[in-house]
Amino acid sequence: MALPLDKGIFGRLRHDAGEAWERYVRHPFVLALGAGTLPRPVFRHFLQQDYLFLIHFARAYALAGFKSDTLADLRASAAAVSAIVDVEMPLHVSYCRDWGLTEAQMEAEPEALETMAYTRFVLERGLAGDRLDLDVALAPCVVGYGEAVARLLADPATKRGGNPYDAWMDAYASDEYVAVASAAIDNLDRQFARRGGEARYESLLATFNAATRLEEAFWEMGWRQRG
Amino acid sequence: MALPLDKGIFGRLRHDAGEAWERYVRHPFVLALGAGTLPRPVFRHFLQQDYLFLIHFARAYALAGFKSDTLADLRASAAAVSAIVDVEMPLHVSYCRDWGLTEAQMEAEPEALETMAYTRFVLERGLAGDRLDLDVALAPCVVGYGEAVARLLADPATKRGGNPYDAWMDAYASDEYVAVASAAIDNLDRQFARRGGEARYESLLATFNAATRLEEAFWEMGWRQRG
Amino acid sequence: MALPLDKGIFGRLRHDAGEAWERYVRHPFVLALGAGTLPRPVFRHFLQQDYLFLIHFARAYALAGFKSDTLADLRASAAAVSAIVDVEMPLHVSYCRDWGLTEAQMEAEPEALETMAYTRFVLERGLAGDRLDLDVALAPCVVGYGEAVARLLADPATKRGGNPYDAWMDAYASDEYVAVASAAIDNLDRQFARRGGEARYESLLATFNAATRLEEAFWEMGWRQRG
Amino acid sequence: MALPLDKGIFGRLRHDAGEAWERYVRHPFVLALGAGTLPRPVFRHFLQQDYLFLIHFARAYALAGFKSDTLADLRASAAAVSAIVDVEMPLHVSYCRDWGLTEAQMEAEPEALETMAYTRFVLERGLAGDRLDLDVALAPCVVGYGEAVARLLADPATKRGGNPYDAWMDAYASDEYVAVASAAIDNLDRQFARRGGEARYESLLATFNAATRLEEAFWEMGWRQRG
Repeated sequence: MALPLDKGIFGRLRHDAGEAWERYVRHPFVLALGAGTLPRPVFRHFLQQDYLFLIHFARAYALAGFKSDTLADLRASAAAVSAIVDVEMPLHVSYCRDWGLTEAQMEAEPEALETMAYTRFVLERGLAGDRLDLDVALAPCVVGYGEAVARLLADPATKRGGNPYDAWMDAYASDEYVAVASAAIDNLDRQFARRGGEARYESLLATFNAATRLEEAFWEMGWRQRG
Repeated sequence: MALPLDKGIFGRLRHDAGEAWERYVRHPFVLALGAGTLPRPVFRHFLQQDYLFLIHFARAYALAGFKSDTLADLRASAAAVSAIVDVEMPLHVSYCRDWGLTEAQMEAEPEALETMAYTRFVLERGLAGDRLDLDVALAPCVVGYGEAVARLLADPATKRGGNPYDAWMDAYASDEYVAVASAAIDNLDRQFARRGGEARYESLLATFNAATRLEEAFWEMGWRQRG
Repeated sequence: MALPLDKGIFGRLRHDAGEAWERYVRHPFVLALGAGTLPRPVFRHFLQQDYLFLIHFARAYALAGFKSDTLADLRASAAAVSAIVDVEMPLHVSYCRDWGLTEAQMEAEPEALETMAYTRFVLERGLAGDRLDLDVALAPCVVGYGEAVARLLADPATKRGGNPYDAWMDAYASDEYVAVASAAIDNLDRQFARRGGEARYESLLATFNAATRLEEAFWEMGWRQRG
Repeated sequence: MALPLDKGIFGRLRHDAGEAWERYVRHPFVLALGAGTLPRPVFRHFLQQDYLFLIHFARAYALAGFKSDTLADLRASAAAVSAIVDVEMPLHVSYCRDWGLTEAQMEAEPEALETMAYTRFVLERGLAGDRLDLDVALAPCVVGYGEAVARLLADPATKRGGNPYDAWMDAYASDEYVAVASAAIDNLDRQFARRGGEARYESLLATFNAATRLEEAFWEMGWRQRG
C-alpha cells in the first residue's frame, strides 16, 4: 500500500514546497533513526515532545469538527479525534514505557519552543482562516511522517531488524497509518473542491510551507540535543 | 435513576433561573406532548428542527474539545461528539422515519429563527468566553430535556401507553440519557472548580438564563405552529 | 451619491437573494417609517435593540481584524470598530435621548430573540468560516440599511419634513453612510478575489440569504410589537 | 513616571515567574543594547521580526475586542489596535528607515520560529481561553519592554548619548509608553476581578510563564544571530 504523494492538491503543494519538503522528510534526525544511529536520549526527548504534540493535534481535529460544513466532515473529524486520544495516544504511552517514560513524566515535561510553534501555528491558522486553511496546515504532519518512513524503508542505508527504532518505523509504515494519511490527501481534495479555487492557492502554499518548515524545526530540535 | 437537579453549580444556576426555568421545562408544548394532545404536524416540525439542532450541538462539543485544558476533558468531549453523530443522530433519523421524515428532507429544511438563535448563541458564547462559559450555555439543553420528561412521567396528566410520544419520552427517561445529563451536571462542577469563582457567577447566570430563554423559544416555535 | 448596488460579488448575491432581499429592504416597518405612520413605541423598541445590536456589530468588525490576511485589511477593520464605538454609538445614544431613552436603559434592556439570532449568526459564521464568510454575513446589514432609506427617499409615499423619522432617514442617506456602505461593497470584491472562487459561491449565497432573512426578522420583531 | 510593577495580579504573576522573568528583562541582548555594543546586524534582524510581531500583536488586540464583555473593554481594545496600526507601526517603519530597512523588505522577511511561537501562542491562548487568558498572555510583552528599558536607564553600565540605540530606549521610556504599560497592569486587575478567582491562578501563571519564556526566546533569537 503506497501513499498517493502526487495526488491532487496535496501533490501540488508538496511539489511546490520543493527543497523545504525534502529537508523535512529527509532530515538528518530521520536518516539517523533509519540507520539506527540516533542517540537514545535524543529519541526519548522526541517521544516526550511528541506526546505533548499529540494533545494539541487532537485539539486541532476537534476544531476541524467545529469548522465542518457537512455532517460527513463532522463525523470524520470526530473519528479522527477519537483515533488520536483513544488509540494513538495509548499506543504512544505504551510504546514510551519501553523507553522508560511514564505518562506522568511526559505530562510534566516543559513544552519545547518547536512544539509550541508548530501546534499553535496550526490551531491559530485554523481559527483565523477556515477549514481548508486548517487542513492544509495539518497535512505536512500527517502525510510527512508516512513519507519519511516509506522512504527510509526504500533506502539501503536503513537498518532493519535489531534497529532500536524498528517498532517506530513499523507504526508509520503500517496499512492503518497509510490509510489515515491517504484519507488526509483525499480530504484535502474535497475541501479544496468546496472552498478552494486558484485565488487561494498562493496563500495555501504559504501555509503549507510554514507548516513544513515548522515540522523540520521539530526534528531539528531533537537533532540539536544530540550534543 | 434520578437526575441530581439540585447538585452543585448546576443546582444553583437552575434555582436562580427561577420562573424562566419552569417556563422552559413545563412549556405547554411539553405538557401537550405528555398528554398526547400535541398535534402531529407540530411534533414533526419540531423533529425536523431538532435534527438541524443536533448538528450544531455536535459542533459545540467539538469546540469544547478544542477548548479543553486537560486530556481527560478532551477525551470526554470526543466521546460526546461521537455519541451525538454516531448514536443519537442515527437514532433520531430512524425515529423520524416512523414520522414519515427522511434524512434528506430534514437536511433540506430551512433552519428556523429559534434554532439559529440558540445554537449560534451557544457556539458564540463558547468562542468569546472559555470552556466554562460554553458548558454553562449547553447545560439547559442537556439537563432540561431530562427534567422535562422526568416531570411528565411523575405527572398524572401524562398519558402513557398509546401516547404517540411514548417512544420520545422513553428516550429521555432512559438510564443512558439520565447518565449523560448527570455527567453534564458533574462536569459543570469540575469546570467551575477549575476556572470559576464567585466573581464569574453573575455572568454565568446571565448565560444560563439566556440559554434557558432560548430553549423556551425553541418549544414555543413548535407551539406557535399549531395554528 | 448612489450606492453601487449591482456591483461585483455583492450585486450578484443581492440579485440571487431575489424576493428575500425585497422583503427585507421593503419591509412594512420600513415603509411605515417612511410614511411617518410607524407607532412611536415600536420605533423606540427598535432603537433599544439596535443599541445592543451595534455592540455585537462592533465585535464582528473586531473579529474581522483578527481574521485579516493583510495589514491594510487589519487597518480598515480597526477603523470600522472605532467608527462604530466612538462615532456611531455616541450618535445613536444622543439620538435616542430625543426619544426619551438613556444609555443605561438601553444597556439594561433584555436582548430580543431576533437581535441574538442575527448577531450570533454573524459572529459564529465568522469564526467557523473565514474573513470572506464573515464579510458576506455582515453585508446585508451595512448595505441594506442604505438601500432601504435610498428607496424610501425615491418613493412618493414617503413623507419628508415633519416626519418623526426624518433624522433617522437622513443619517442613512448621508454621504458618510453611503461611503461606508460603498466601501463594504468594494471590500467584498477584494475578499472574494483573494479567498473566493466559484466553488464557494453557493455557500456564500446561503450565508447571504440567511443574514437577509435574519435582518427581515429584525424589522419584523419591531413590526409585530405594534399591537 | 514609574511602572507599578508590583501592583495587583500583574505584580503577583511577575513575582511568581521569578528567575524566568529576570532572564527575559535582563537578557544579554538587552544589556548589550544598553551598553551600545549590540552588533548592528543583530538589531536590524530584531527590527524586522518586530515588524512582523506587531501585526500579530494588533490582531491579538482585535481578538480582545471580540472577546470583550463590556463596551468599555471593547472601546479600549479598539483604541489599542488603532494605536498599534496607526501610530506604533508607522513610527516603527519610520525608525527602521534610519536603519536602512524599507517596509517592503520587512513584509517580505520570513517569519522566524521565535516570532511565530510567541505570537501564535498568544492568539491561540486567547481563542482557547477567555479574555483574561488572552490579557495574561499579552502582559509580558507590553510591560516587559517598559521594565527592560527602565532598568537599563537605571544601570550605570548603560551608555546614553551616542548610543546607536538611544532612540529605541527613549521610545520605551516615554511617558506615552509607560502610560500604555500601566494601563495594561490596571486592565489585568479589572479582568481578574471580573473573570478570575484563586482557582484560575495556577493556570494563569502557567500562561504568564510560557509567554515570558517565549519573549526570552525572542531576544535570544537576535542574540544567537550575532555570530
